[in-house]
Amino acid sequence: MNMVPLVCIVSGRSGTGKTTFMEKLVEELVGRGYRIGAIKSDAHGFEIDVPGKDSWRFTKAGAKVTAIVGPNKFALVEETREKKSLDEVAALMQGVDLILVEGYKTAEKPRIEIVRAEKSREVVSSPEYLLAVVTDVPDLAVPVPKFSLDDYPGVADFIISQFPGL
Amino acid sequence: MNMVPLVCIVSGRSGTGKTTFMEKLVEELVGRGYRIGAIKSDAHGFEIDVPGKDSWRFTKAGAKVTAIVGPNKFALVEETREKKSLDEVAALMQGVDLILVEGYKTAEKPRIEIVRAEKSREVVSSPEYLLAVVTDVPDLAVPVPKFSLDDYPGVADFIISQFPGL
Repeated sequence: MNMVPLVCIVSGRSGTGKTTFMEKLVEELVGRGYRIGAIKSDAHGFEIDVPGKDSWRFTKAGAKVTAIVGPNKFALVEETREKKSLDEVAALMQGVDLILVEGYKTAEKPRIEIVRAEKSREVVSSPEYLLAVVTDVPDLAVPVPKFSLDDYPGVADFIISQFPGL
Repeated sequence: MNMVPLVCIVSGRSGTGKTTFMEKLVEELVGRGYRIGAIKSDAHGFEIDVPGKDSWRFTKAGAKVTAIVGPNKFALVEETREKKSLDEVAALMQGVDLILVEGYKTAEKPRIEIVRAEKSREVVSSPEYLLAVVTDVPDLAVPVPKFSLDDYPGVADFIISQFPGL
């Protein structure tokens, strides 16, 4: 069982800037000395390669999982029958203080929702898991703290306050 | 503790064709229905990227570990202080029947050594861990089975015979 705190960054619609928000939040937290694990949900599938190298020959040869282990970097690619669950992925993340997740909005995990006015003015997350909302809708009525779209330090402070071990 | 059988493919010198041998061995075993995990030791470090995507933005933002989770593929990149041990890597490989490793010749694990006449005529592995030798040196004196450089089916049969669970 993985006890590392985990927070999803979600939104009801696409195009709200989740990736950029999470990228800046990672930078903010790393700058404060935290070791961050980041998980990105990719709905469409992806290819992977190591430029200038032929390192995935074993994957192409049919290996289910291929790992490359360098002096200061480790990479692993796994072919899966179905999408791995967040718990399965979190269990593979070693030596981190906090895991941030882009997407996985149906997972039963704490989340921060981004509501960008030009996309939607609605919060879609169940109140049970909603920690905070990041929004440019000034009058959005929510029972949780609100932050502006670029308040990465504020959200970092807030996340740290939510997990006493951090 | 990971109980999946694991065999290293090693050689005393570089340039013996370890990668190609292991690639063909993976193909052979996958063709027989085994789920194979493959580990490649990379002494020099490597870069990783997903062509046409910006999926490692979190790594660039300082995340220690970044994972991308697609419907049928999972990828993880971790920045490490030192090279991960074989046991650490094996523990991250889920749902495989057998793990083949290129390199890690100092690990205390079962291994098959490749001895290619044009590079060397010496076996460097400790007899304690040496399962077999793959070689084009006809008179090489070793206390273990010998296979020719392209006898992937023979080596596959042999590996299967060594691990009763396979």
